[in-house]
Amino acid sequence: MAKLYFRYGAMNSGKSTALLQAAYNYEERGQRVVVAKPRIDTKGASQILSRLGVGRQVDFLFDADDDVRFQFRAYARGDQPDTLVPHLAAPPVACFLIDEAQFCTPAQVDQLLKIAVVDEVPVLAYGIRTDFQTRAFPGAQRLLEIAHSLEELKTICRCGRKAMFNGRKLGDQFVFAGDQVAIDGVNVTYESLCGACYLKESGGVFLPEHPA
Amino acid sequence: MAKLYFRYGAMNSGKSTALLQAAYNYEERGQRVVVAKPRIDTKGASQILSRLGVGRQVDFLFDADDDVRFQFRAYARGDQPDTLVPHLAAPPVACFLIDEAQFCTPAQVDQLLKIAVVDEVPVLAYGIRTDFQTRAFPGAQRLLEIAHSLEELKTICRCGRKAMFNGRKLGDQFVFAGDQVAIDGVNVTYESLCGACYLKESGGVFLPEHPA
Amino acid sequence: MAKLYFRYGAMNSGKSTALLQAAYNYEERGQRVVVAKPRIDTKGASQILSRLGVGRQVDFLFDADDDVRFQFRAYARGDQPDTLVPHLAAPPVACFLIDEAQFCTPAQVDQLLKIAVVDEVPVLAYGIRTDFQTRAFPGAQRLLEIAHSLEELKTICRCGRKAMFNGRKLGDQFVFAGDQVAIDGVNVTYESLCGACYLKESGGVFLPEHPA
Amino acid sequence: MAKLYFRYGAMNSGKSTALLQAAYNYEERGQRVVVAKPRIDTKGASQILSRLGVGRQVDFLFDADDDVRFQFRAYARGDQPDTLVPHLAAPPVACFLIDEAQFCTPAQVDQLLKIAVVDEVPVLAYGIRTDFQTRAFPGAQRLLEIAHSLEELKTICRCGRKAMFNGRKLGDQFVFAGDQVAIDGVNVTYESLCGACYLKESGGVFLPEHPA
Repeated sequence: MAKLYFRYGAMNSGKSTALLQAAYNYEERGQRVVVAKPRIDTKGASQILSRLGVGRQVDFLFDADDDVRFQFRAYARGDQPDTLVPHLAAPPVACFLIDEAQFCTPAQVDQLLKIAVVDEVPVLAYGIRTDFQTRAFPGAQRLLEIAHSLEELKTICRCGRKAMFNGRKLGDQFVFAGDQVAIDGVNVTYESLCGACYLKESGGVFLPEHPA
Repeated sequence: MAKLYFRYGAMNSGKSTALLQAAYNYEERGQRVVVAKPRIDTKGASQILSRLGVGRQVDFLFDADDDVRFQFRAYARGDQPDTLVPHLAAPPVACFLIDEAQFCTPAQVDQLLKIAVVDEVPVLAYGIRTDFQTRAFPGAQRLLEIAHSLEELKTICRCGRKAMFNGRKLGDQFVFAGDQVAIDGVNVTYESLCGACYLKESGGVFLPEHPA
Repeated sequence: MAKLYFRYGAMNSGKSTALLQAAYNYEERGQRVVVAKPRIDTKGASQILSRLGVGRQVDFLFDADDDVRFQFRAYARGDQPDTLVPHLAAPPVACFLIDEAQFCTPAQVDQLLKIAVVDEVPVLAYGIRTDFQTRAFPGAQRLLEIAHSLEELKTICRCGRKAMFNGRKLGDQFVFAGDQVAIDGVNVTYESLCGACYLKESGGVFLPEHPA
Repeated sequence: MAKLYFRYGAMNSGKSTALLQAAYNYEERGQRVVVAKPRIDTKGASQILSRLGVGRQVDFLFDADDDVRFQFRAYARGDQPDTLVPHLAAPPVACFLIDEAQFCTPAQVDQLLKIAVVDEVPVLAYGIRTDFQTRAFPGAQRLLEIAHSLEELKTICRCGRKAMFNGRKLGDQFVFAGDQVAIDGVNVTYESLCGACYLKESGGVFLPEHPA
């Protein structure tokens, strides 16, 4: 039976590289993969970009109100999402890979599980576990609930310990209030932190806006 | 550095046995453990009971509005939670074990993380990932967000696949509506199911009350 | 496809308890398991005994020159190993569990892999990774080579770190020379140690008899 | 405490990419890594090459009779292995990474464990578990015995299952006799296979030269 995998890690743990390697492994053997990501991730537009310098075009982007299973099946049959003109000779898909899976809606994660369980296509979902306030993104929360397998991609904190949390910075300052989604770029950056360093920077709380 | 571990599994995967074994391993070496559980779990009262037939008294029960870190530290110093009379000679605690950790509040899970990160005592939290509607219990959701390590305790579905979900039964019938918490006993029972069997029994949805 | 699992851990990490729990989980659901162990393990004779106080009779013992796949298949069909009188109505086996799997021969581990891959019955092999000189037992070495999944059962060292090695003691003294197999009992005992404590006790080498 | 990690996988599972990503993650945070590999791996000479197209020069190569801990410590202090002229200002090393670790000698793996346990520098060893006859390479065997953590890097077989074994091919033909080491190149290639496909190609045995 195919499974839904959630391969999670802090910012800059190498999730995109791992996705690109997994896709490469399948294709090197002549097996077909489909790669998609939520459109909300504006970084790289329709590219998956690894900090190591490799990249790849996604097969399709999806919006929050899309049925990703419908789109996947249409695409897998050889329909182009835009035109819906069927290709007759599309080979079966050996694996469906999702980048930035934390930005899926919970309903879309349920659709991913059905792709694995009903359509019997393995789904590899790569994403971040929690936002800068240590709360799960909606897609990550649902993946943590229902994925068959939770696999961590590790990276390190400035102190050498394993990083778990994603601190948000404006310039040199950590900030703990703001919108859940702010794609890193010119003004906003992120630094992966361990529990101890996050606590120190946040003044002793894990959920800065809603202390326990 | 000490870590917070979430060892999760479906109903009847052997979580209590695993907790009892871990406690035994520490004590056999002369190391002290503290064992606690949320009071909401009325099964076994202040006992941790394994289906294999072994059991153990918890050191303390805690309520939803308790500060479990405060209680742990008081108990670890040798204070009895009831009397708060300090014992002078309490040895340090090598491990803090929590049974039925899905019933912790999110704030209590933050306290557990501080016990690991600040007090440097490893915390082993054993619990169920999701309720009968495939939604995480509040404590489980927070553990999935912030535990250092997510480790699955496996069990099998009726069909031989790995079980992930917890189907609720009234008599012989699966039910998909009701309160989140209904401790298993005379009327209510649970059966661990894989994704395919859960889907079949629920009529094709993972979140029966709130279909996507 | 069924898999061969090697669940390894240091002495006294709770391997037998974990095996008994896994068997219980299957049988509680009405699924049949077969449990066996190498005859060389004289501790408990044909019993699997957990330090928690639970136990179980094995279905059969096997010797170093036995074909364990032949024996398993005969037993699974309902033949008694002694009499080889077939039972007509033996139900299929959902899982084959091996205790003290480090004492299997390498050829027997190959047979276990065939039970998983060819006969499609999952095999759970529980055992110790290395002897008191940090060398793999023959069965463990082969399991480390060819098991589908290597899963560690953890326990702790006297110092609080994770134990990896098995120190042998005669009375209060660690000894680093002697036969590979000496079942723990009156004279010989074992203490699980982390790398640092093993190094300290052994005078700075991991392979005491054959320093690098 | 620092640990020795063995990240193993079949041929073409992406081990070099994973190593390069781990090194990148450290360096991006201003932390220093040292990267080495056994000289026996002639592929790429002193380069670590990923099939994704990224690469990196190793810091040093070592031979079978080298003391890799001595070399590492000399290099970490800022000595150049060739000249042994010390650099005064070498920063501490946050991580030591080994590619093609299966080609280490067992004694060198013991040295790696001492780098982790005594020198307190984490060691990430990436390598293949077994040769084309399903036997562990000497370095892999020792890593499987004494690494703190065994972590699999997965890839897929031609049939879609997880690959475990490394089939050797001369042209289009699988071969099951020959030297343990034959670096893949013009004549010899490798194909990662699952247990079932390996069995089929080898005529039903896992150890073709020494059937059980």
